Amino acid sequence: MYHKRRSPPGSAPATLVPHSVDGDSRHPKIDAIFYDAGKLVEAHSHSIEEIFSKIGAARFAWINISGLGDLETLKSVATRMKIHPLALEDVLNLGQRPKVEEADDYLFVIAQMVYLNREKAFCHEQISMFIADNLLVSIQEEPEFDVFDQVRARLRAGRSMIRQSGVDYLAYAMIDSIVDHYYPVLENVGNRLDQLERLALTHPTRDLVEQIRETKRTLTQLRRLAWPMRELVSSLMHDTRSMLSKTTKVYLRDCYEHTVQLMDLIESYREVSAGLMDLYVSSVGLRTNEIMRVLTVITSIFIPLTFIVGIYGMNFSAVSAAGKPMPLNMPELNQPYGYLSVMAVMFIIAAVQIYLFRRMKWL
Amino acid sequence: MYHKRRSPPGSAPATLVPHSVDGDSRHPKIDAIFYDAGKLVEAHSHSIEEIFSKIGAARFAWINISGLGDLETLKSVATRMKIHPLALEDVLNLGQRPKVEEADDYLFVIAQMVYLNREKAFCHEQISMFIADNLLVSIQEEPEFDVFDQVRARLRAGRSMIRQSGVDYLAYAMIDSIVDHYYPVLENVGNRLDQLERLALTHPTRDLVEQIRETKRTLTQLRRLAWPMRELVSSLMHDTRSMLSKTTKVYLRDCYEHTVQLMDLIESYREVSAGLMDLYVSSVGLRTNEIMRVLTVITSIFIPLTFIVGIYGMNFSAVSAAGKPMPLNMPELNQPYGYLSVMAVMFIIAAVQIYLFRRMKWL
Amino acid sequence: MYHKRRSPPGSAPATLVPHSVDGDSRHPKIDAIFYDAGKLVEAHSHSIEEIFSKIGAARFAWINISGLGDLETLKSVATRMKIHPLALEDVLNLGQRPKVEEADDYLFVIAQMVYLNREKAFCHEQISMFIADNLLVSIQEEPEFDVFDQVRARLRAGRSMIRQSGVDYLAYAMIDSIVDHYYPVLENVGNRLDQLERLALTHPTRDLVEQIRETKRTLTQLRRLAWPMRELVSSLMHDTRSMLSKTTKVYLRDCYEHTVQLMDLIESYREVSAGLMDLYVSSVGLRTNEIMRVLTVITSIFIPLTFIVGIYGMNFSAVSAAGKPMPLNMPELNQPYGYLSVMAVMFIIAAVQIYLFRRMKWL
Amino acid sequence: MYHKRRSPPGSAPATLVPHSVDGDSRHPKIDAIFYDAGKLVEAHSHSIEEIFSKIGAARFAWINISGLGDLETLKSVATRMKIHPLALEDVLNLGQRPKVEEADDYLFVIAQMVYLNREKAFCHEQISMFIADNLLVSIQEEPEFDVFDQVRARLRAGRSMIRQSGVDYLAYAMIDSIVDHYYPVLENVGNRLDQLERLALTHPTRDLVEQIRETKRTLTQLRRLAWPMRELVSSLMHDTRSMLSKTTKVYLRDCYEHTVQLMDLIESYREVSAGLMDLYVSSVGLRTNEIMRVLTVITSIFIPLTFIVGIYGMNFSAVSAAGKPMPLNMPELNQPYGYLSVMAVMFIIAAVQIYLFRRMKWL
Amino acid sequence: MYHKRRSPPGSAPATLVPHSVDGDSRHPKIDAIFYDAGKLVEAHSHSIEEIFSKIGAARFAWINISGLGDLETLKSVATRMKIHPLALEDVLNLGQRPKVEEADDYLFVIAQMVYLNREKAFCHEQISMFIADNLLVSIQEEPEFDVFDQVRARLRAGRSMIRQSGVDYLAYAMIDSIVDHYYPVLENVGNRLDQLERLALTHPTRDLVEQIRETKRTLTQLRRLAWPMRELVSSLMHDTRSMLSKTTKVYLRDCYEHTVQLMDLIESYREVSAGLMDLYVSSVGLRTNEIMRVLTVITSIFIPLTFIVGIYGMNFSAVSAAGKPMPLNMPELNQPYGYLSVMAVMFIIAAVQIYLFRRMKWL
Repeated sequence: MYHKRRSPPGSAPATLVPHSVDGDSRHPKIDAIFYDAGKLVEAHSHSIEEIFSKIGAARFAWINISGLGDLETLKSVATRMKIHPLALEDVLNLGQRPKVEEADDYLFVIAQMVYLNREKAFCHEQISMFIADNLLVSIQEEPEFDVFDQVRARLRAGRSMIRQSGVDYLAYAMIDSIVDHYYPVLENVGNRLDQLERLALTHPTRDLVEQIRETKRTLTQLRRLAWPMRELVSSLMHDTRSMLSKTTKVYLRDCYEHTVQLMDLIESYREVSAGLMDLYVSSVGLRTNEIMRVLTVITSIFIPLTFIVGIYGMNFSAVSAAGKPMPLNMPELNQPYGYLSVMAVMFIIAAVQIYLFRRMKWL
Repeated sequence: MYHKRRSPPGSAPATLVPHSVDGDSRHPKIDAIFYDAGKLVEAHSHSIEEIFSKIGAARFAWINISGLGDLETLKSVATRMKIHPLALEDVLNLGQRPKVEEADDYLFVIAQMVYLNREKAFCHEQISMFIADNLLVSIQEEPEFDVFDQVRARLRAGRSMIRQSGVDYLAYAMIDSIVDHYYPVLENVGNRLDQLERLALTHPTRDLVEQIRETKRTLTQLRRLAWPMRELVSSLMHDTRSMLSKTTKVYLRDCYEHTVQLMDLIESYREVSAGLMDLYVSSVGLRTNEIMRVLTVITSIFIPLTFIVGIYGMNFSAVSAAGKPMPLNMPELNQPYGYLSVMAVMFIIAAVQIYLFRRMKWL
Repeated sequence: MYHKRRSPPGSAPATLVPHSVDGDSRHPKIDAIFYDAGKLVEAHSHSIEEIFSKIGAARFAWINISGLGDLETLKSVATRMKIHPLALEDVLNLGQRPKVEEADDYLFVIAQMVYLNREKAFCHEQISMFIADNLLVSIQEEPEFDVFDQVRARLRAGRSMIRQSGVDYLAYAMIDSIVDHYYPVLENVGNRLDQLERLALTHPTRDLVEQIRETKRTLTQLRRLAWPMRELVSSLMHDTRSMLSKTTKVYLRDCYEHTVQLMDLIESYREVSAGLMDLYVSSVGLRTNEIMRVLTVITSIFIPLTFIVGIYGMNFSAVSAAGKPMPLNMPELNQPYGYLSVMAVMFIIAAVQIYLFRRMKWL
Repeated sequence: MYHKRRSPPGSAPATLVPHSVDGDSRHPKIDAIFYDAGKLVEAHSHSIEEIFSKIGAARFAWINISGLGDLETLKSVATRMKIHPLALEDVLNLGQRPKVEEADDYLFVIAQMVYLNREKAFCHEQISMFIADNLLVSIQEEPEFDVFDQVRARLRAGRSMIRQSGVDYLAYAMIDSIVDHYYPVLENVGNRLDQLERLALTHPTRDLVEQIRETKRTLTQLRRLAWPMRELVSSLMHDTRSMLSKTTKVYLRDCYEHTVQLMDLIESYREVSAGLMDLYVSSVGLRTNEIMRVLTVITSIFIPLTFIVGIYGMNFSAVSAAGKPMPLNMPELNQPYGYLSVMAVMFIIAAVQIYLFRRMKWL
Repeated sequence: MYHKRRSPPGSAPATLVPHSVDGDSRHPKIDAIFYDAGKLVEAHSHSIEEIFSKIGAARFAWINISGLGDLETLKSVATRMKIHPLALEDVLNLGQRPKVEEADDYLFVIAQMVYLNREKAFCHEQISMFIADNLLVSIQEEPEFDVFDQVRARLRAGRSMIRQSGVDYLAYAMIDSIVDHYYPVLENVGNRLDQLERLALTHPTRDLVEQIRETKRTLTQLRRLAWPMRELVSSLMHDTRSMLSKTTKVYLRDCYEHTVQLMDLIESYREVSAGLMDLYVSSVGLRTNEIMRVLTVITSIFIPLTFIVGIYGMNFSAVSAAGKPMPLNMPELNQPYGYLSVMAVMFIIAAVQIYLFRRMKWL
């Protein structure tokens, strides 16, 4: 249910365990964009040194590292940016709570991106960012899904706000993009809840229960991720150091409101989902009730009738062994209209019962 | 269930997307009232420039824009009032949380109005207000329902408090009117709850469950809207800037108490609604219980009797194949009072059972 | 469920709507007590002016107005005490949350008194108080029930603390009396809960559900009233202005503890009441279980027996159409002890089943 | 469920009502211990004056009054220690929330002691303490159970910390003893919960429900008492006046931790008890399920068989009234192996059903 | 469910009760490591004095005492480190809440370690630490499981951070190790929950209920322990005294995040576990529903058929006693195709019923 912490319990802090990776993905994919209002240079490489050598091509630099399989790359970054070993350990240990940490030389942000994979299952991925004066390094797993494409597009577009501002605004843009991507996931959950609600009312099956719990679990996880995302944005907003410009903070406020709205939505959905099991149980109860009604009606009508026909199947002799007539033994059997009378009586009994059941709304 | 955010995830902040509108409603309807204690001038137009040209006709101006289909109009307003692009984006993105934002030149208020539409369904509509020194601009969707008619009437009435005070008091009056309109919606929910409660007790049907959930959802939404409305009024009350006069704040306190009362009511209703599903389930359970009782009583009475008549339907011969009498084989069949005795025995058995069931209160 | 606000939504604040009253009760009943340590003068009238003219008869004055049908009376009071129009509106709009408001010249207190009416139904009534330097004006509906009689008696008694202190102590005495009257109502609810619990265990009927919900609703309302009563007393206690003497505040602390105790009790009762529906449902479930047991036992015993007697009711011929004996066709029928044997077998089967059911504690 | 407040609602504050007592217990039992590090003198009397006359025998004095039947005694204490009338009223009104009140000359503590009476039922008793400089007066009902015996023993033991410290340490020792006595009561509740849980799983009876609710109520009461006990100790700890020595406060911190632990335990137990009714309901549901299974299996097996034997009990003639053979009318009856075949068919049907039921785990 | 406090209620505070131990385990096992960056000396003994005599072998000393059976050892430690008697009492009274206490000469930490014993049952063990300037004394029960082995290994490894820092860092390393060991326990609970969920859906048995409650109880206990562990780490982090170096606090922050993550996980699991009983009940309900369906289908099909065959088992005579034909008495019996027609009618009835049941999805 959760990514596990990598280092075994009790090992020294800041123990770095690279991600076990297969084959050639050992070398992370590194993309860099060097930009300022005037120009933009892009670079792609597997060597962090090569990328570093190009810093200075423009005023601001954004280096994005995809893939956690190579410790050396990370250590190079750590050395250059004076990153604390504990921060580096957090980068490698997936499943961290989103958070902001201020160090002397950089802001360290861990965020959790959410998306639906190809099977429409809920996934989340950790994204770490180190924000220094003119350099932003973001680190993530080899992504199945990339939330930053639009940010790149806006960078390339030129003359946009993002080109004229520093890396703090770029960091905002990235975080905002991460927050924005919670919405389609939540919408999907919302649709699912509507569908489950309809099914719970009409087709309460065992299978449905599993789906309800699955959706609940997704919501629990979303909440567990979105809540600290809100704190993250909030603490960036209230950061008292000079790392973030005043303009960026105005935008962060907007982003903060989105996280509040997200939490609102998640709480509303949780409320809806909380009622689904009740709905299901009540629906099963109603079905049992209906089944019982059918059983009761049929049984109540036929059991007395069966008793009556049983009576006239008894073998009491009208004549004793000694040949004496015993007129009190089932004289009805010898009436010309006996059979018809019994049938009529039974018909009346059944009719009265049906009438009564109808009046009780059981039929 | 919720209005979606307009801009696709990841797009630049402050991206403005006009509301897709059909045909001629593209041009918003603009109503302006220029007023002071002495005079009042009204103006209606589709051109914001035309309206702006008339500002100065009286000391205070209220411009109300209905319809979000035309970006140009909004941009004109933004330019004139120096509105931040993010605020403008909020105006266009429906489904915002009610909030207050202070800027250098204006107060920005987003409120959510609620009403019942013609089918008595719960609706809500976003109303944005920009409050500057002598100018108040309010922006809303082309409204099916207008909460401001009474405010206009009070303005026109002259000599009222609203004419003698500035736009801050006007803003209060508008917000108060929005808050007041929550009451009839809540009253409707209250009546609905009473009705559902009665039905849950007497006619627990599958249909009812859907209605209960619908009402719960309405309450959840009302709460989601009313809660930040309270914060909104509260932060206006505690605003430390000079934008709101002391007198207006006294009135806002009154308005604040209404929002507190609203929350009280909503919470009470939520408590009532929370019990409705339990009520329903218990009601279905009681019905099942009653059905079972009928089934059990009828079955318990007739099954033993059917067994008895079955006995005397057995074909044991009183005479062996060899012609020897076998007096132990069902001698009852040959008694003159056999039939009557059996009938009597069965009657007694049934009577005793009925007596027992009555004592157990099953009949 | 709740008193509605009087003024229609959107109307100007401080719109005063007198209470629709029938006939001669239009004129409120006004009782005044003018007192100080030395003397006490009482006055009764329908004219507030007449009462006002007597102020000065003693150092302190308490004017109690019963009935909200006459706006003029209230306006006279408002003029004399410089009451804000919004406060006056609150007096007329019943169903206010208990609260304290400080104005320059007076303390404005709204409290909610609770009592059981003649049908032992829970009622509440709004009591407003304006506390100025030497004058206390209390305003209430024409009361079915008066909580202030004992306060009056203590006033008349002379030499009591209440005579020697100012109107702030009188206000305390009145609020304390209002708080004290919550206790008998709660005690009644407590007894009711005990009774409902007993009934839920022994006689779970549809009617009971309605009573449980009624009691829950009463508790919800009591809580909704008692909670702000506590805040009211608390804010009087912590009032930093000179309106309340230090001595009075010591007594208010005592009163505050009563409100805390009230909340304790209400919460305990709410917990008890929360379990009542569960109790009811479990009780119905147990009954269904018992009914099922009876049904199962009777059915399980008699169905196999009925099958057996059915066997010997079959008409297989021992002699073929051609007259050949067919000894394998039901030879039992022709045994001299056939009948007795079958009866014995059936008796044994029944006995074994009864034994088994007993062992399973179903009998 | 709760001790009621003594004074009728609306009566003057500080109205003292002595406890109705029978006969000679009207005079409270007064025990005094006068002690300091060097010596210890004990005194027992029914007259408070006699006790007071002995104060000064040693540096510190502890006077314990058992029995609330005599107002004069209490008034004497009040006069000597300058006790506020409201405090005295609290002493007499049982069922107070535990609390600390600081007055100029004394600390006033109300605590609630809990114990199990001889029938192992949960009881609580109010203990009031007035702590002055060198004098501690404790007041309680004639106790069925005394928590202070061990404190006395420690006093008498000499050379203990309690003898060397002042009455503030004595007060701590008494409060600590009261807190400690919550543990055995809680342990009893814990054992009871374990037992109820076992019973709910195996023998869900109506009686059990009452016991579950009883235990829940005890826990609610314990929580209602323990919570303010914690506040009490906490406010003694943070008392800023010189009444309590620094050393005593260190010990109070220890006592405070016990109250925190108490609350922890109570909350854990409350959680367990909250699940008991669910457990019971699920247990009843499972039993119903089992009963239904038996009913269904037996009915499903025998009903088809009974139908078959019914077929061969039909009286279709093989020969028409006119003597013509009707070979299609139940020819099976005239087969030599008819009976055996039918029996075999029925056996197979039953066997198949049993096999199916077993596969469905119903048998 | 909980370790009980050792000292009987009412006994003097700081009463020390040694743990009853069997035989030779009376003497605790004492391990000491004397270390600094340069060298490391280990010592093992049963005599604390012997260990103390070796202090000074290196700059820092860590003494670990396993076993609480010997009071003298503890008293020696207490004397040397000037430990308050209450702290010593806490060491001996197991089941303390994790906490930090600052004294003049040392920091006193109580932590609770958790682990799974050999039967995979959840256990916890109290670990006390006294942290002085260059000396750390840790005290624990004779452990079945040791969390400190890895800390020792890191000490021995040399050149690690732990060797270069003081005992404050060592204390951090120990606490971090304790916190880390919560993870495998939680993971075990998580797997258990998954398994229980699957079982609840497919095999809802009485046994399962006990397992669900067991797991819930484990979670409750884990939460009760982890919550104060978080507070513990937090108060160490915010400790304002010089006992902990700034570097150590950076590491404590990392540890703090782990405790937050722990609480997150525990709360998520609690949510999952809260739904398990509902799942179980719904699962049982669905089974009952299925059983009822089978019962109803079989009964509904065969009861009418049995009635029909009962009809033709009636003995109405076609010929009166007087020999007159009574053609209305069951003429069907004398039709050549009577039997076949009845069989056909019954087949059709059964077929129609099966069709209907299929359409209702009951089959």
